Amino acid sequence: MASGFDSGLPSSRQIQNMIKEQKQVQVKLIGGEMLSGQLRWQDQFCIGLIDESNQSSIVWRHAIAYVKPIT
Amino acid sequence: MASGFDSGLPSSRQIQNMIKEQKQVQVKLIGGEMLSGQLRWQDQFCIGLIDESNQSSIVWRHAIAYVKPIT
Amino acid sequence: MASGFDSGLPSSRQIQNMIKEQKQVQVKLIGGEMLSGQLRWQDQFCIGLIDESNQSSIVWRHAIAYVKPIT
Amino acid sequence: MASGFDSGLPSSRQIQNMIKEQKQVQVKLIGGEMLSGQLRWQDQFCIGLIDESNQSSIVWRHAIAYVKPIT
Amino acid sequence: MASGFDSGLPSSRQIQNMIKEQKQVQVKLIGGEMLSGQLRWQDQFCIGLIDESNQSSIVWRHAIAYVKPIT
Amino acid sequence: MASGFDSGLPSSRQIQNMIKEQKQVQVKLIGGEMLSGQLRWQDQFCIGLIDESNQSSIVWRHAIAYVKPIT
Repeated sequence: MASGFDSGLPSSRQIQNMIKEQKQVQVKLIGGEMLSGQLRWQDQFCIGLIDESNQSSIVWRHAIAYVKPIT
Repeated sequence: MASGFDSGLPSSRQIQNMIKEQKQVQVKLIGGEMLSGQLRWQDQFCIGLIDESNQSSIVWRHAIAYVKPIT
Repeated sequence: MASGFDSGLPSSRQIQNMIKEQKQVQVKLIGGEMLSGQLRWQDQFCIGLIDESNQSSIVWRHAIAYVKPIT
Repeated sequence: MASGFDSGLPSSRQIQNMIKEQKQVQVKLIGGEMLSGQLRWQDQFCIGLIDESNQSSIVWRHAIAYVKPIT
Repeated sequence: MASGFDSGLPSSRQIQNMIKEQKQVQVKLIGGEMLSGQLRWQDQFCIGLIDESNQSSIVWRHAIAYVKPIT
Repeated sequence: MASGFDSGLPSSRQIQNMIKEQKQVQVKLIGGEMLSGQLRWQDQFCIGLIDESNQSSIVWRHAIAYVKPIT
C-alpha cells in the first residue's frame, strides 16, 4: 500500500480484500463506462485493474462512481 | 465510523440514521444513474450500499448528487 | 450550523436566509436535473432539501451548479 | 469580499472588475448551460449572478467552465 | 504570475511559454466544448484566453481536459 | 519530476515507467474522448502527451478516467 493512504478506512479495506481475494469486479465510471476485471493495487489517487484480456489499466479514483464485486 | 470523518455534520448524522434504521434509499449519481437499496457504512470518501438482490457496492461520495429515503 | 463550515461567506449567509425564510428554491444539478423545494439545513458538504411532496433529500454541494429562489 | 478568498489572483481581480463595472457577462457551466447577467458578489466557493429578469442565483465556482464579458 | 501558484511545475512552465510566445492553442473542456485562441495569463484556479474575435474569457482549470498548441 | 509530487505512489511509478519505456498508451477522458500516444512527463496536476502526429498536449489529471498501455 502507498504512503499518504488511509488503509484503515472501510472503503480501503474492502478494496484491499477484493485485491487479495482476486475478486472479479465491475467498476462503473462517472462518465458511464463500465469496466470489469480484477483489482491489483490501490493508492491515494488510483486503482490498478487487470481486465479479462489480461490488460492492465490505471484507473483514477476521481473517475469512479462505484465498485461492485461480480458474484 | 472511520477516522478523519466528521460524524458531527448533519449530513453524516442523517446517513448514519439511514444506516441504523436500515432505510430503503435512492442514491442519484452525478452521471444520472439511480441506485437503490440500504446504506451499510460510510467513511470519508465512500458509502456502502446493498441493493435489492443483496449485492454490495462501494459508492464514491464524489459521484453522488443526492440521497433520498424511499417512503 | 455544522463545525468546519464558514458561515461568514456570502454564499453561506444567503443559503442560511433561504432556510430561515423557508423560500421555495430551484437547485440545478451539474448533471442537468433541476430539484425544487425548501432548503432545511446546510453543512460543509451537503444541503438538506424538502420537496413539494414533503420528501427530504441530502444534496451534495459538489453536485450543485446553482441555487435560485423561486419568486 | 469574503475571508479565505485570495483577492490578489488575476481571476479574482477580473471578476471583481466585472462586478464593479456591472458588466453583462456569459457564464458557461460545465454541464453545458449558458447563464447570462451581471455578477454581484464572489466568495471562495460561489459567485452571485443577477439575470435579465432581475433574478438572483448563487452559482458554484466548481460548476463554471468559463466567464466571458458580453461586448 | 499569482501567489500560491507553483510556477516550477512542467505544466505551469509550458503554459507560461505558450503565453510568452503568444501561441495559438486549443483548449478542450471536460464538457466537450473546444475553445481556441491565445493564453494571456494563468493563476492557481484559472487561465485567461483571448479568442479570434479578441474576446477575453476566464477559463477555470477544473473545467479543462487538455491544452494543445495549434501548429 | 516536479516538486509536491509523490513519485513513490504505484500510479506515479507506473506512469514514470510508461514515460521511460516510451509506451504507446490510450488515455480515456472523463468526458468520453480517447486520446492516444506517448506520455512524456508528469507533474502534480498534469501529464504530457505526444500523439501520433507528434503533437504535444498538456492533459489535466482531473480529466483522466484511466490510462492503458497499448499492447
